[in-house]
Amino acid sequence: MHKEDQLVERIARKVPSILGHRASGVLRLGIGDDSAILSPGGRSDWVLSCDAFLEGVHFLAKAHPPDSVGYKSLVRAASDLVAMGASPRYFLMTLALPASRIGTWLDAFLAGMARAARYLGMRLIGGDTTKSRSVSISITVLGEVSRERALNRSGARPGDLIYVTGKLGRAQLGLELVRANLVRRSGLQDVLRQHLYPRIPVKLGEWLARSQAASAIMDISDGLSTDLARLCSASRVGARIEADRLPCVAVPANLFREATKPKFSALQLALHGGDDYGLLLTVLPQRTKTLQRAPGFSSLTCIGQITSGRKILLIGGDSAKPLAARGWDPFTRK
Amino acid sequence: MHKEDQLVERIARKVPSILGHRASGVLRLGIGDDSAILSPGGRSDWVLSCDAFLEGVHFLAKAHPPDSVGYKSLVRAASDLVAMGASPRYFLMTLALPASRIGTWLDAFLAGMARAARYLGMRLIGGDTTKSRSVSISITVLGEVSRERALNRSGARPGDLIYVTGKLGRAQLGLELVRANLVRRSGLQDVLRQHLYPRIPVKLGEWLARSQAASAIMDISDGLSTDLARLCSASRVGARIEADRLPCVAVPANLFREATKPKFSALQLALHGGDDYGLLLTVLPQRTKTLQRAPGFSSLTCIGQITSGRKILLIGGDSAKPLAARGWDPFTRK
Repeated sequence: MHKEDQLVERIARKVPSILGHRASGVLRLGIGDDSAILSPGGRSDWVLSCDAFLEGVHFLAKAHPPDSVGYKSLVRAASDLVAMGASPRYFLMTLALPASRIGTWLDAFLAGMARAARYLGMRLIGGDTTKSRSVSISITVLGEVSRERALNRSGARPGDLIYVTGKLGRAQLGLELVRANLVRRSGLQDVLRQHLYPRIPVKLGEWLARSQAASAIMDISDGLSTDLARLCSASRVGARIEADRLPCVAVPANLFREATKPKFSALQLALHGGDDYGLLLTVLPQRTKTLQRAPGFSSLTCIGQITSGRKILLIGGDSAKPLAARGWDPFTRK
Repeated sequence: MHKEDQLVERIARKVPSILGHRASGVLRLGIGDDSAILSPGGRSDWVLSCDAFLEGVHFLAKAHPPDSVGYKSLVRAASDLVAMGASPRYFLMTLALPASRIGTWLDAFLAGMARAARYLGMRLIGGDTTKSRSVSISITVLGEVSRERALNRSGARPGDLIYVTGKLGRAQLGLELVRANLVRRSGLQDVLRQHLYPRIPVKLGEWLARSQAASAIMDISDGLSTDLARLCSASRVGARIEADRLPCVAVPANLFREATKPKFSALQLALHGGDDYGLLLTVLPQRTKTLQRAPGFSSLTCIGQITSGRKILLIGGDSAKPLAARGWDPFTRK
């Protein structure tokens, strides 16, 4: 099992918690999905999630421009709202940073965050600031969704078709470009942009909540293999994914040294690359016609089908192999 | 001006934000008070705040027991709800920690946090966990208060009486005991307890929201001198504080070396010591009789009066001196 998920289970066991659908009263959904859901009365439910973004873990102090750090810290948190079909509204931020970053670095960071807030239609409503040895950001986001319309990851049923948005592995390839100092290489600006300044399918998420066209939905933040395993586990189902249908990023020949090529093949990046913040959704076969009316339908690719067996299989040619969850896990050394 | 407050202003200027009472629609109060207020319809308003708690800044890895770190990280965040008169309900946590802390340290941390959650009646509903080089905790708390009953810090008027709860400076003295490795010294367990496992006046806060007996309220987290300056600034008033009336902690003779004694006098600790998490409130003189019905009224001390001039003065004997804000500021080297 994914080590971060084990840790979350341990925390939830030891601290008074509300787990998933065991919520009651005002709280509709607790720990274990992309966000928690609060249903305070009135026409809307409110969706809440929080996300850490740390120097040396989620971004590199020297390689990542501060405006990307500001932009991405908010967008990746908001992605958890989109994965519930909610409209991003407000955020709170704790920001810890060394004195040396309070000048131009912070200005660029805030400019990037402002750009993300305008793009998402979000506004800052509170927070906490303090000094620290390295930059540490935690963002809590609030989204709004019509009452009882929020989507979750536990509704997938055998026979449902599995879709993803966009190309898989772009952000991971972008990260490798940054690490290898190949950011100026032409023809890869799209890939780099998705890593530094990701766009997320806000309108599609909102449409899915309105139309209730999907049976389950979550965002792909840690990589398809890991996040599909989470969706299947929450829905108590399995899946068959077809390698040939995966919308892979194009990896230029000779970009990587021979030794590292297998790790960075288009297929490996699509299966295990994190940080894309696209959506993973499942749809009843008879609802695929409705799905064609979705905003951004052209960005959707059907990659397989939900099964009743609990295994997750990758179909390639004539073979079907178990697909191990090898996406991003902060507690696994890479 | 307090450097952290300057930084908050700068962030709010550069990122799309909702400032204080300029909120509209569902949001009733934005940045600048203890918490933000969301009024989603229904009978309750929801109060939100977040708080960082970092190793090396807010606690010392070697000197502070992990169960105190877990306990205090939640209680100090909840203190911002109490300061609005809200009942603590839910929390989200981002927890970043090194692999070396995932064993017994984390167990003790979670036990302390569980104790605080039970004491406050709060439940964990979401979060994010990741590795990091040092422990970094950010907690977002949600509290519930009857619609339009939340209290804030901007309603103090000239003539109002100023009250504080409990003894001032206990937690700061407790910190100095920990720093000086004097934790086993007898007779100071109460002081040490307020530093490691603070109790906060939840019932008094709830009663103040119900009774509307106070004109302004906030928690004393950074020290009386700094927090009173914030309350006065938000209310556009000044204050006169009487040194003789301050409920000071008793500092045993010979506890500190001669050189450091002036810094740790009972008066200095009461004026500038942080971390107490008591309440600071202002009350119309004609409402003091109502206040006598408050739960924990005996813990309240009247320490002075709000004035129309914007100065904050400390009255001692025949002299009145300006009281500088010298409480805790993470961005001022101490």
